[in-house]
Amino acid sequence: MLKSERPIGIFDSGLGGLTVLKAVRALMPAERLVYFGDTARVPYGAKSKSAVVSFSREIADFLFAKKIKFLIVACNTASSLALEEIREISPVPVLGVITPGVGAALELAPRGGKILVTGTAATVASRAYTRALQAARRDVRVTEKACPLFVPLVEEGWCSKPLAGLVAREYLAAFRGRKIDALILGCTHYPLLKKLIARVMGPRVKIVDSALATARAARLELSRRGLLNPGRSRGECEFYVSDAPERFSSLARKLLGLKTGEVGVKRF
Amino acid sequence: MLKSERPIGIFDSGLGGLTVLKAVRALMPAERLVYFGDTARVPYGAKSKSAVVSFSREIADFLFAKKIKFLIVACNTASSLALEEIREISPVPVLGVITPGVGAALELAPRGGKILVTGTAATVASRAYTRALQAARRDVRVTEKACPLFVPLVEEGWCSKPLAGLVAREYLAAFRGRKIDALILGCTHYPLLKKLIARVMGPRVKIVDSALATARAARLELSRRGLLNPGRSRGECEFYVSDAPERFSSLARKLLGLKTGEVGVKRF
Repeated sequence: MLKSERPIGIFDSGLGGLTVLKAVRALMPAERLVYFGDTARVPYGAKSKSAVVSFSREIADFLFAKKIKFLIVACNTASSLALEEIREISPVPVLGVITPGVGAALELAPRGGKILVTGTAATVASRAYTRALQAARRDVRVTEKACPLFVPLVEEGWCSKPLAGLVAREYLAAFRGRKIDALILGCTHYPLLKKLIARVMGPRVKIVDSALATARAARLELSRRGLLNPGRSRGECEFYVSDAPERFSSLARKLLGLKTGEVGVKRF
Repeated sequence: MLKSERPIGIFDSGLGGLTVLKAVRALMPAERLVYFGDTARVPYGAKSKSAVVSFSREIADFLFAKKIKFLIVACNTASSLALEEIREISPVPVLGVITPGVGAALELAPRGGKILVTGTAATVASRAYTRALQAARRDVRVTEKACPLFVPLVEEGWCSKPLAGLVAREYLAAFRGRKIDALILGCTHYPLLKKLIARVMGPRVKIVDSALATARAARLELSRRGLLNPGRSRGECEFYVSDAPERFSSLARKLLGLKTGEVGVKRF
């Protein structure tokens, strides 16, 4: 098999990373994909760096054994705590979700602009987005806002219910008058609330979908390395989780319209 | 020191167990209490039995070293997965939250009555309440309903906001016409939503507060063993967590009006 015909590996602590998988499929339909969701150990948010590094390396090894050509870490916590440690053991290029989101936000923010980062409590506490944004451009002003109800709201499939609007307003209404230029969806679940968040923030605020930004960055990187799959038929997707494959499969269908087929189980 | 003057140990995966601590304090103000919240490893819900057993034993050992006279496992997951394993190593009596809640519900349910159990996804998936209820009385009919948004709602301090009412209706309205006799609050966070849940369910449905039931069961057991503290002054409370003591302290004040004083940190 040509190296370019090998699959792309994608992993997340759970099912949020499926928004990245979906964006990758839309952008590069010929690519074969292998997804791993660590549903037995989700969420990573409250775990120590050493635990997240050790879990991420185990999953990366599992995906390397699937002969992947490229690895996407579709999890904000693992991207902020374990990216370097995964790269140390990786035979293939590794891309996280933070750098692409940061790049996309900086393109949208004018000099001295204001960026609002939304994420889980753990991601916000890590300040990973603030550090990455300000390392790239010292002029931007960054505020981070944890929105802990968004993930369970998405997982319940309640994104279009009126109460989802109330929750979004509760978290974000205070930022409406503050001249925010860009809002980063800093959690892989949040793209499912994108329209709602855009409505609450108003038309002036650009929404940065880090799933989409990550898929674009992956395409650029694969193309630069001559690794884009040249095929014309639709690439296959394989799915693995560490626990509860049926729940994963049914949520993937309910939330993202994804048909996973049979979901494999790999315990560590 | 008299054995009866020793403290009661209480632990939970996080801060939910503080509802039990508060009920114990109200019922037995002279008792000294030592609370441990495993905030570094919360939530236990998605973890394997062996992990929950090992965490629970570590915490129990920490509390035994504080010379406790009685141990309350104020966590539904640990109560359903690890109670026997804690008892095996415990030099003192051990009480979980499930048996007291089950007992209180059965007192309220007539022959052939209907009981609705609310809890986290993990507690509901374990079917621990259904098993305990039906082991005690085969005539009762039990339904369990997972309410995953309740915990983050409580932790945000949003219990009295209109959206809390919408969330409660979303989960529970379908049960209103179904002649439920008793509803068990099967998660130590839920007593903070008790009034709201009672309003949604209507006056016919009795709400079983397992925190209160556990405090009552503890008093009965201590009294039976001659271990009630005979003192007349208010007993002291000590608090320990495995991570983020400031957040714990501020949530305890915000959600429960509890002043924790300095919160100790014990990592495992």
